[in-house]
Amino acid sequence: MRILIVNPNTTVSMTEKAAAAARGAAGHGTEITAATSKGGPASIEGHYDGAIAVPGLLMEIRDGQAAGADAAIIACFDDTGLEAARTLAAIPVLGLCQSAVMTAALLAERFTVVTTLERSRVLIENLVRRYGAGERAKVRAADVPVLELEHKASAALFKLKRQIELALDQDGAEAIVLGCAGMADLAQSLQREYGVPVIDGVSAAVKQAEALVAQGLKTSKRGSYASPLAKPYSGAMSAFTPILA
Amino acid sequence: MRILIVNPNTTVSMTEKAAAAARGAAGHGTEITAATSKGGPASIEGHYDGAIAVPGLLMEIRDGQAAGADAAIIACFDDTGLEAARTLAAIPVLGLCQSAVMTAALLAERFTVVTTLERSRVLIENLVRRYGAGERAKVRAADVPVLELEHKASAALFKLKRQIELALDQDGAEAIVLGCAGMADLAQSLQREYGVPVIDGVSAAVKQAEALVAQGLKTSKRGSYASPLAKPYSGAMSAFTPILA
Amino acid sequence: MRILIVNPNTTVSMTEKAAAAARGAAGHGTEITAATSKGGPASIEGHYDGAIAVPGLLMEIRDGQAAGADAAIIACFDDTGLEAARTLAAIPVLGLCQSAVMTAALLAERFTVVTTLERSRVLIENLVRRYGAGERAKVRAADVPVLELEHKASAALFKLKRQIELALDQDGAEAIVLGCAGMADLAQSLQREYGVPVIDGVSAAVKQAEALVAQGLKTSKRGSYASPLAKPYSGAMSAFTPILA
Amino acid sequence: MRILIVNPNTTVSMTEKAAAAARGAAGHGTEITAATSKGGPASIEGHYDGAIAVPGLLMEIRDGQAAGADAAIIACFDDTGLEAARTLAAIPVLGLCQSAVMTAALLAERFTVVTTLERSRVLIENLVRRYGAGERAKVRAADVPVLELEHKASAALFKLKRQIELALDQDGAEAIVLGCAGMADLAQSLQREYGVPVIDGVSAAVKQAEALVAQGLKTSKRGSYASPLAKPYSGAMSAFTPILA
Amino acid sequence: MRILIVNPNTTVSMTEKAAAAARGAAGHGTEITAATSKGGPASIEGHYDGAIAVPGLLMEIRDGQAAGADAAIIACFDDTGLEAARTLAAIPVLGLCQSAVMTAALLAERFTVVTTLERSRVLIENLVRRYGAGERAKVRAADVPVLELEHKASAALFKLKRQIELALDQDGAEAIVLGCAGMADLAQSLQREYGVPVIDGVSAAVKQAEALVAQGLKTSKRGSYASPLAKPYSGAMSAFTPILA
Amino acid sequence: MRILIVNPNTTVSMTEKAAAAARGAAGHGTEITAATSKGGPASIEGHYDGAIAVPGLLMEIRDGQAAGADAAIIACFDDTGLEAARTLAAIPVLGLCQSAVMTAALLAERFTVVTTLERSRVLIENLVRRYGAGERAKVRAADVPVLELEHKASAALFKLKRQIELALDQDGAEAIVLGCAGMADLAQSLQREYGVPVIDGVSAAVKQAEALVAQGLKTSKRGSYASPLAKPYSGAMSAFTPILA
Repeated sequence: MRILIVNPNTTVSMTEKAAAAARGAAGHGTEITAATSKGGPASIEGHYDGAIAVPGLLMEIRDGQAAGADAAIIACFDDTGLEAARTLAAIPVLGLCQSAVMTAALLAERFTVVTTLERSRVLIENLVRRYGAGERAKVRAADVPVLELEHKASAALFKLKRQIELALDQDGAEAIVLGCAGMADLAQSLQREYGVPVIDGVSAAVKQAEALVAQGLKTSKRGSYASPLAKPYSGAMSAFTPILA
Repeated sequence: MRILIVNPNTTVSMTEKAAAAARGAAGHGTEITAATSKGGPASIEGHYDGAIAVPGLLMEIRDGQAAGADAAIIACFDDTGLEAARTLAAIPVLGLCQSAVMTAALLAERFTVVTTLERSRVLIENLVRRYGAGERAKVRAADVPVLELEHKASAALFKLKRQIELALDQDGAEAIVLGCAGMADLAQSLQREYGVPVIDGVSAAVKQAEALVAQGLKTSKRGSYASPLAKPYSGAMSAFTPILA
Repeated sequence: MRILIVNPNTTVSMTEKAAAAARGAAGHGTEITAATSKGGPASIEGHYDGAIAVPGLLMEIRDGQAAGADAAIIACFDDTGLEAARTLAAIPVLGLCQSAVMTAALLAERFTVVTTLERSRVLIENLVRRYGAGERAKVRAADVPVLELEHKASAALFKLKRQIELALDQDGAEAIVLGCAGMADLAQSLQREYGVPVIDGVSAAVKQAEALVAQGLKTSKRGSYASPLAKPYSGAMSAFTPILA
Repeated sequence: MRILIVNPNTTVSMTEKAAAAARGAAGHGTEITAATSKGGPASIEGHYDGAIAVPGLLMEIRDGQAAGADAAIIACFDDTGLEAARTLAAIPVLGLCQSAVMTAALLAERFTVVTTLERSRVLIENLVRRYGAGERAKVRAADVPVLELEHKASAALFKLKRQIELALDQDGAEAIVLGCAGMADLAQSLQREYGVPVIDGVSAAVKQAEALVAQGLKTSKRGSYASPLAKPYSGAMSAFTPILA
Repeated sequence: MRILIVNPNTTVSMTEKAAAAARGAAGHGTEITAATSKGGPASIEGHYDGAIAVPGLLMEIRDGQAAGADAAIIACFDDTGLEAARTLAAIPVLGLCQSAVMTAALLAERFTVVTTLERSRVLIENLVRRYGAGERAKVRAADVPVLELEHKASAALFKLKRQIELALDQDGAEAIVLGCAGMADLAQSLQREYGVPVIDGVSAAVKQAEALVAQGLKTSKRGSYASPLAKPYSGAMSAFTPILA
Repeated sequence: MRILIVNPNTTVSMTEKAAAAARGAAGHGTEITAATSKGGPASIEGHYDGAIAVPGLLMEIRDGQAAGADAAIIACFDDTGLEAARTLAAIPVLGLCQSAVMTAALLAERFTVVTTLERSRVLIENLVRRYGAGERAKVRAADVPVLELEHKASAALFKLKRQIELALDQDGAEAIVLGCAGMADLAQSLQREYGVPVIDGVSAAVKQAEALVAQGLKTSKRGSYASPLAKPYSGAMSAFTPILA
């Protein structure tokens, strides 16, 4: 089984980090292929970046499917382009937020998502509601740059842990979801430290992808996610056609 | 006051039709400027087309604002790219669906949106819920190609009217929202025929745009729609920066 | 276009203040007519006052329509009698709360309504939910008498600003709605001070009224707001018939 | 224990019918006092009538409380003026719709309210949602004049029964709520005929009133229902003060 | 009228306390019969205890009905086994939480349930939502052992009162529901002390049971609560058949 | 990895069928252990059977965990005892309904659950709402005995297919969830026949169990699912203690 993980921003080091997390989570017999968007923003911080990132993301999914991927994962907790990708692809497509939220709901009645930027908080809150967990989950922003989280003793990690502690004390959180593709490596140590389940979106998405492929399940092509109709795509977007090369 | 109406697909005849409707609705002293996306799909039918259309749409809004527009309207009932456009622009940005749904809620306790394609039905249903009208409104698809609606005696118009009649009989609809940018010219005759308010999204959006500009109100730049942060946009998307030329 | 603004309480100075705000918001060619209820409470503070104010309010709307008004506005943030007025009138009727909440939802994902009295807080919270913004908006009471807000350096203004600051800090508010007809003159200075949209209900309602009239839209007379059926009204209420004089 | 049942319309025969139903439901030691509004519409059909009926209704509750009533019931399924009455009175006030809906929820997971007029259907649907039963209950209108229901073999009864049968077949109703004060005498025979619980609002409200009085519980005067503040009521409404004579 | 109150745990002193509260609330002519589960946990603290308690509870209801009870009450605020009991019994079955929440909704727009253990807080919150009061009510845990509440000056009572005060100050509670069968004797003194309605579940359930019996209403046997189908029950559960002895 | 699948009824043939489905879905390296409840109803049809089945189910989970299972699945679509099992166990516990509903939400915006008995329809509808899919999913009952489904040309299969067709035509279903543990073997052929994803609960639960174990995630023991407190369990339930032998 081959699972493609696509980084919708153009920063290769982030792709590598997500790919490493995906490989750590992948089961025996699962091959992880990672792709970085060939055109778009260097990182995704809010709605504008998210929108500009989607065409590049979609091309990687199109090409990855053509190259034989069995499922695809969008490596951004905003689930940028998830609906468009499901419309485009024949293979199943997973988002980090949806996968993580669903996983948390199997383990806890109440949980909190801790994300990085305040500007992403409401965006994720809206996603959580769309996924049906609005009455179970709260969303907090630690207001930290992702890259700083790599240093274990950093101020960024301190801020992240502060929000986890507030979630446990004030939200009644029974589990924590890490709301950023770049926090994967922290999940295990935080889980040990706080004694509650700590869910990483990349791992959760890999396991959901494996689960769908193993069950022979693909995105429905009836209704919402029906395949794109043939038509001209012109101008700067003329390369972004859904047709396989 | 200058209001920019952007057609997020590349079909100029559709731009002209929407611009005509906008001009018909515009108040004294409002100048309507119309723009057609310079790159993207020829029409928007479902999530994939919607996503590919957004970058081109955003550039028209960016450039329109630079040229002095006071507000912008996205001329597609799917409200494609609305959140990204609000994040990008300093001026207010209106979507047809949100404007029409809000207008209908001022006139009726229950209403039905009648759109064209079945594949857009759930997409619009989800928008209606996000806009807080999920308990007031139903969504129906007439399954007709937009262009055929121009012929008053056409099979397409017959199908559209069939859904309006079902909405009145089975949904308890007290008003009808036309769920397509291309139906603007039908609103008045349908309103006369059925004796209930019939709301057209283009007109509704123009009036909301005028209302916001007149009140000196702009999109909040605190939180969800905070302006894009400076960063590189590369590859095929390198032209799509939020920075004004 | 003539828009009637009805003060549902009997205090003429409040009518004048609302009328001034309405005139400030009105577009070119819009004439604002103001009316004060001829019988009812001197102010509306809670459900009892609201109910007693409705008959007098309805008569002003009936008579204003007879005198040629194109739309009517109820100048109380509780939207007292809004449904009855829509049932009575052939012309569109706007409430401050519904108009302001809808306007805010065009500008921000999350916002807070700041009203005056604690006893009105839940009443407005229930309205906000009915209008579909329950998941976007919070309601706070500043616990201040309206009239004191006129003094720019007053303790009342201080309390109001305190709640705005709490809304920004604790609610994640991206915009503020002023939840009282008597706060209209504060909107612009507060908007400058806090850097977020500040919405005044009177202005919002005037613009919605203009928008509906310009579109040729009236309240649906099918279902919920069907015109009153002919019948006797007796006793102290015998004058309150829906029939035009 | 004395329970006052107030007919908010001015038709004495309806008062008598509701009073008879209330007496049939009252427990040992409960005295039912009935009052008819001294001024207002002859019947309540929609929002306008409902609003005009409230002041007269409130005066009966004020005077009934002064005369020693321990609780009051508003004998109209629209729960007209319920919040204002709770604000005014020191004694508990019950509405037929709220009482019946709560009773039904103790007996069935899903139920349907069958009311008389189509114009009241959405109004009751909105009440049902406010009372928290929106996911359990549907509302149907039989489109019958209340008075005709008195003839057991009438076309009106036939229409009512038709809606009950549709509720059982199509809504999955497990119980029926009769959505009109004038249907009380039909409950038992319909219950026998259809083999599901059939709830009458008058009876339900009497039992809830008895229950509250017996428990020493009164409407909270903290927050939403705080007693009216002293102030002038002028003009045609000058008699409608909350102050006891 | 005979009402059976079943303690679903095996601690007789708790049965006696609930029975005393029930007798205090019962009307003239109502006989309260109390039963203690013959097998199960000594107390119910969380989901596991709740599940193990149900079979014993159901047998008491079965036998109580056979002995002539007209209605049954489950004396645990978790409403343990309520749906199974309604399925089993021909007589109405009441839960403390559902009864108390409904009673509170007749008296206040917003209220708070104060329960004992943190581990029951979310369980009760979920019940409150199922009963349709999720937008009206909050749930707090005082984190106290029930038995200590009997000492009026105890630390436990202090903690309970602390949560009531927080509910009034921070939740905007207009009424308090005591979320534990063992708090019945505190309701009146707390109501006097805090000046808001304080609802006890045992009393509320007794009055609802009386109300249903007096109206001739029983649990619907159509759909959700249809009587159990005949079938073998084997092993340790072989005695737990729904068939009356 | 060892996954225990527990049949909460006492019919061994059903256990075998579920175990076969589980083995068909299990990944390389996963061992499926099946257990049949040692005491309880022969099948689970409605709330009463569900409640009586729980203690026997819990003992199998307790003993299975003691014997080294890494996760447990409750093989009944009603998710009987799921919360109690999560409270009891240290290992993750999965329900068929929750697992299948979550899986469907990864593949389709709208779907329909088709279950067997009408009496289970509302029960499952309530589960679907609790799991956050109430706005995405409908529930239908085919009114068929499970065992008859084994005959491919049977009337039972015809009825099941009839409901699937209605779901596609009338509900706008984009995927189908088979709402019964005994339908697992039909999923693939129905998927081929109807061209939409058809989800079987047993397979979905096996994959979710594998996913949780692989991620090192267990049920949170903070709050709702905190381990049972030590206490006596007496009478017929004395053997049902949470303590491992």
